[in-house]
This record gives sequence, C-alpha cells and structure tokens, in this order.
Amino acid sequence: MTGTYDPARSAILLVDPYNDFLAENGKIWPAVRHVALEVGLLDHMRAVVAAGRESGLRIFFVPHRRWREGDYEDWDHPNPTQQRIRESHSFALGTKGGEFHPDFQPMDGDVIIQEHWAQSGFANTDLDMRLKQHGITHVIVIGLLANTCIESTSRFAMELGYHVTLVRDATAAFKPEMMHAAHELNGPTFAHSITTTDALLKTLRNTS
Amino acid sequence: MTGTYDPARSAILLVDPYNDFLAENGKIWPAVRHVALEVGLLDHMRAVVAAGRESGLRIFFVPHRRWREGDYEDWDHPNPTQQRIRESHSFALGTKGGEFHPDFQPMDGDVIIQEHWAQSGFANTDLDMRLKQHGITHVIVIGLLANTCIESTSRFAMELGYHVTLVRDATAAFKPEMMHAAHELNGPTFAHSITTTDALLKTLRNTS
Amino acid sequence: MTGTYDPARSAILLVDPYNDFLAENGKIWPAVRHVALEVGLLDHMRAVVAAGRESGLRIFFVPHRRWREGDYEDWDHPNPTQQRIRESHSFALGTKGGEFHPDFQPMDGDVIIQEHWAQSGFANTDLDMRLKQHGITHVIVIGLLANTCIESTSRFAMELGYHVTLVRDATAAFKPEMMHAAHELNGPTFAHSITTTDALLKTLRNTS
Amino acid sequence: MTGTYDPARSAILLVDPYNDFLAENGKIWPAVRHVALEVGLLDHMRAVVAAGRESGLRIFFVPHRRWREGDYEDWDHPNPTQQRIRESHSFALGTKGGEFHPDFQPMDGDVIIQEHWAQSGFANTDLDMRLKQHGITHVIVIGLLANTCIESTSRFAMELGYHVTLVRDATAAFKPEMMHAAHELNGPTFAHSITTTDALLKTLRNTS
Repeated sequence: MTGTYDPARSAILLVDPYNDFLAENGKIWPAVRHVALEVGLLDHMRAVVAAGRESGLRIFFVPHRRWREGDYEDWDHPNPTQQRIRESHSFALGTKGGEFHPDFQPMDGDVIIQEHWAQSGFANTDLDMRLKQHGITHVIVIGLLANTCIESTSRFAMELGYHVTLVRDATAAFKPEMMHAAHELNGPTFAHSITTTDALLKTLRNTS
Repeated sequence: MTGTYDPARSAILLVDPYNDFLAENGKIWPAVRHVALEVGLLDHMRAVVAAGRESGLRIFFVPHRRWREGDYEDWDHPNPTQQRIRESHSFALGTKGGEFHPDFQPMDGDVIIQEHWAQSGFANTDLDMRLKQHGITHVIVIGLLANTCIESTSRFAMELGYHVTLVRDATAAFKPEMMHAAHELNGPTFAHSITTTDALLKTLRNTS
Repeated sequence: MTGTYDPARSAILLVDPYNDFLAENGKIWPAVRHVALEVGLLDHMRAVVAAGRESGLRIFFVPHRRWREGDYEDWDHPNPTQQRIRESHSFALGTKGGEFHPDFQPMDGDVIIQEHWAQSGFANTDLDMRLKQHGITHVIVIGLLANTCIESTSRFAMELGYHVTLVRDATAAFKPEMMHAAHELNGPTFAHSITTTDALLKTLRNTS
Repeated sequence: MTGTYDPARSAILLVDPYNDFLAENGKIWPAVRHVALEVGLLDHMRAVVAAGRESGLRIFFVPHRRWREGDYEDWDHPNPTQQRIRESHSFALGTKGGEFHPDFQPMDGDVIIQEHWAQSGFANTDLDMRLKQHGITHVIVIGLLANTCIESTSRFAMELGYHVTLVRDATAAFKPEMMHAAHELNGPTFAHSITTTDALLKTLRNTS
C-alpha cells in the first residue's frame, strides 16, 4: 500500500446526496441548514468527491429508499423515522427531492448501491458484495446524517470488517450536539480515523 | 397479541453482563460507576430480568468476546476499542472479569449467543437465527454500554426487522452525555420504544 | 397455529417468474422446457399462488437482477452464470423477457423484493427484513431454477432460521438429474418439507 | 497478483475436519468411507493444507457446532440434519469425535472460526469478518460434505462476493451421485474454479 488510502482498496461512500437534504428547497434542508452552513457541508462533500476521483478512489452512491406510494403502510412496526417519512414523503421517487443533488451526479465507473430502508447502507442492500467485487477494504463515509445514516453505515462497516474513516465537516445533522455525539462520543469507539476534509485531501494527494 | 410484549414473540437481550463491567473490582466498573450508580443500573437490570422471567419472556445472553491470548494481534485494522482490549484484556477468558455477574447467571431455558467481536450482538453471531427459532420479533435490550454495544445491537435489530425497546435506566455509559446521546439524540431515530424500568414493569405485568 | 401454514406466519416466495424463463419465446425457456412440461410447471405455479392467495398467505416476488448495460463489466470475479448473463442479457430491463409472466403479476398486498444478483433471494436484498415486518417464519419457495435460485434461496432461508418448504412440481431445471439433486439429494438435508402441489393444496385448504 | 492465488488475498477454508467424519471409528466415517477412499480424501486434504501453508495461504478452520446437551431441544423447527444430530450427537463436545483429526490440527497463524449450526460456515459466524481482517478475497473450500457444508459455504461465499474454488478430490459425500451433483451440476453455476488437488498444487507452486 502506497499510503493510507490505496486506491485499489479504498472507496468513498456517498450517503443520501439527495436534493431533499442538500438543495435550498429540499424538504429536510431547513432542518440541516444550520449545521450544514456552519461546517461548510456542500463545499466539503464536493471537495472529497473530487479529490477521491483524482486519486482513483471509486465512488459508491449509497441512497436511501425513495418513497413510493404504499411504503411502510402494511409493516408491523416501521421505525420512528420511517413513520415520519410515511407522512412527509421525503426522497419521493419521481420528485426533485428524490434526485441526487446536481453536484453529486454519478459518473462512469461509479457504483450505485440498492436503496436502504432505514439507516445503514449495508442493511438489506448489495453494498458489501459490491465493495468486495472491487477489492475495497477501506471506506470513507460522507453525506447525511452524521448520527443516523452515516453512523449506522459506519458501525455496520466496522462490524463487517472494513476500515472506516469519518470526515467531520463533510456531514451534517439536525443539531450541533448530534455532531458532537457522532464525532466525539460514538465515532471514537468504532471508527478507525476521524478527520477533516482538509487533512483528508492532503493524505489523498500523497496517495496518488 | 395480548399486550405490548407478547411472551411468544418478545425477548430480553442481556448484553455483556460481565463482572468487568458490573462488579466492584471489575476492570471497567470504575469507568461506568458514576452513571451506573446514578441510574440504579444493577437494581434495574435485576428487575427487568426478573419481570421478564415472570412474564414468560425468554432471556438471551449476548456476550462480548472474552479476550484470549492472541486476539486482534494479526488483524489488519482492529477498531479503537479492540486495540484497547488488546492491552487491557477486558473480559479475559478464565478470569473473574470474564464471567457473568453472580446476579445474571443463565437459567434453564435461557439462550446464550455466540460472543460478538465488537459492538453489535447481531454481527458475526447466531443471534438473529436463534431469535427466529423462538419466534421472537420484539426485543428489549439492556446491559452495557448504552452508546456502544446496546446502541449497535439495537441499530442492527431495527435494520434486521425487529421491534426495539430501550430502557433508559437499565443501561449505563462512561459519561452522562453518552446516555443523553443514546436516549435523546440517537435512540428516537431507530428505537420503537424508549422507556424506564418502572414503566416496563407495569407493561409486563399487564402482559402476563 | 391452526395448521401447518398459519397465514399469519407463512408466505410464498415466488422466485424469478420472468418471461425469459416461462414464456414460449423466453430466452431460457428452451433450456427449461423439457422439465417444465414434464412436471406441469406453469399449472402448478399458478395453482400454488392461487391457493396461497385464497388461504391468506402473502406472496413475495423474489426477482433476479434485470440485466442493465454495464452489469458485471468492472467486477473482479463475476460467477459463471453472471458471465453468461453478461453475454446473453437474460432478464434485460425494458424487454419482455425482463417482465413478470402475465399469469404472475403482483397484486395488492404482494411484496416485491429487491433484485438479487446471483442465486439467493436473501443475499444482498431486503427479503429477510421484509419477511420480518410481516411476521413470517415459514416460507414456501417456488419458481426457478430448482438447483440454483430455489436451492440457494432455500439454503439461506434455513440458515437464517426460517422453516422451508419445497414443492417438487412447482419448479424446474435444465435437466431431470438437477431436479433429482435438488429434491432427493440436497433438499432433504436442509428443507423442512418437500411436497407436491397437490399435497400442498390440501394442506392449505385445511389451513384456511 | 503474481498468479491465481495471491497469498495476500487467498485462503483455505477447512470445513469440519472432525474425527467423526475422518477417523476410522468416527460416527459418520462409515457413511463417507466409500467415496472418501475412492477419491483419496485424507491424502488430498493433507496435500492441500500442506501446499497452502508452504505457499503462505492462511488456513481458516470452519467447524460445525459441537453437539452439547440441550442443543436444538427447544427450537421451533430444527432442520432434518439437526434433528438427526439431536439423536446421534455427532461432533459432541468433549468427545474424540468432536475433536479435529490429528492430521488437521491448528497451527500458529491459523484462524479458528465460530461454530456453524447448519451447513454454511458463513451463516451465524464470524467467518466473513475474519476473512476481511486478513484481506482475503479468494477462498479454496475443502473438507466435508461436498453437497452440504462445502456447497452451502461456497454458495454463501460467492453471494458475499468471494472468488470460490472447489477441489473435487479433497471432499467427499455419502454417495457418488452427491459428488456428481456438487461438482458437475451445481458447482459450475456458482464456483469460479473447480479443480483437483494435483492441478491446485501446481498452481500454488507457481504462486509462491
């Protein structure tokens, strides 16, 4: 390995880069706006993805279930978030909010994973197998939300045997204390590296 | 179903009830002692297990890997907690610390799950299959630590399709803010119910 | 439970009911035609699904990955079947062959699982979680092929803790000896019940 | 990669090398004896393990659940094989039959996986994670039985994204037609390579 992120073994997991989360008129943007602006979320997500592409790291899109008519209706016990989505129709299929943000469009060579129903991009999807078919052992997890989908995807990744990197300012949450929980209280117990976009970019440049 | 916790479908997951966590001279007791005493951890764990037994809910022991010589030594990337255990030998096999606390001893009919290597009792173990062989769809998760093993086990349980109940005062953590993160910030996004021992006991009594 | 297949806990897994497998001009029909006609495949699949609906058993559609441009192209090691599909474009998205056979169309209340990439309907999909959200513990697995997707889906189901029923004449394979392997050699080691459509229909009628 | 089995990415999965299967007075030896002698099972298993060690391939022991008092007793639906083991006590803990055969003893650097309850060494165990922590992407699966544990472990391996090699004469089964089913009917649909001990040894020698 020529550095910390060998492009033959490392990938970026881009979690839920939907307009509903990231665009000015997105349904959930008002709830993440405060933290997102504070950390410079969009700039940092763009920078990580661009640096990843330059360094030869493959980008895996890890999308949340796009809401469809009937979703969760006949489930025995949808979780609280799913119950909310049943009302709010976040990430609805066929709507602008359920499309990827214009700055995070899949390109040739990217991999788009099956939609996850809850928080972990690994649960009930093909993410683990798709990573294996590309020889990936190290994942850098960015996107939304720090304490839900990013954290569950990362907790699962660690349990499954992956090396996990979190990027403090390439994610956001509803409240600053949720960022604190994700990066100061919980992340240090399971993540192998917790870094910033700036530090990650330096490492990636040394890699390639 | 005759109530919220039908004994034919509900179980208690008792996570890591080791002396190292719970006994006066346990290796990690000093780190959890403050919160444990504050919430009345041992009394509440005892009460939940006793009430569960009375109501006919099966108890599943969900134990952390007991440290053995050589553990993690040749792994490519043990997580931060595993690296610490490699030094501290927490829950060492053959030591008092790696035994279940005297008040949480398996009884006839209890199920003892394979040891988990990290945080989730479901990851790399037989927990999901064993629950299915008993028809369990609802789990009440108690034990340690609130923001690591309890939270990961619960996040996994929800993703796998289980109904999840957290009990605020039948768990503990290193710091009060970790309890806050587990029960006020994160739990409400994935757990179906977050309750207290008192309230749970009332529900269980109505069940049986 | 009021019989062997309590509708509250039992479901039918309908695996890969595509035109490419089942229709006169399907790409793979010529390869399964001999066995399919011999066992009366289509009549029996129709009968099992109809009886299932009448008895209140939910139908889960378990579809193979519909081939899309680029599939498997950059994988490190697609399996032999996937390599063949890369050339043959079986179940291609947007073609007749990639549509469900007219007699096996989803109806209200049916559940459509995410597409599986290889043989097991449980691998890399949401099948296990969706079954749990409907309280299912017993699965009747029909469709194609007896020794590949039906067998892998059933082997996985058993490992995951489900009760598994195979139906000898509601499946088919490329050769009679593959049927023999599935139902006489391998099935008896993992399946809880191996039956025929006629016998199953009698049991289901007694159930409802 | 310097050949087909890069020692940094390849491993041997040694499945169920118990005395009950392999020793003259083993409980199941009489049932596998005919095929085992015909293919030269013990010699070939020894040769593959030795060549693997010489070439730097790590050996993973993948052991079946050692029977313990009470096993399967309160399960809702043990599978047919588990029901038989409940009577026969195969691989009983603390007996000779439940020990590894003298010629297949773990050595320094080998990895011993948690016991599997049914057929697949991946199901309900830590095998996948342990392989990942050693960077393994290619597995050579040997041991017993060809159409049950070897086949299920291999089907699971493929689904999880591994490259799978079967070795025709380093496994056995109860009947020749089960070997035929494993290697001529089913294996070719999921295994990436089906080889013989001789051919494998040549490849491994070229590797190192």
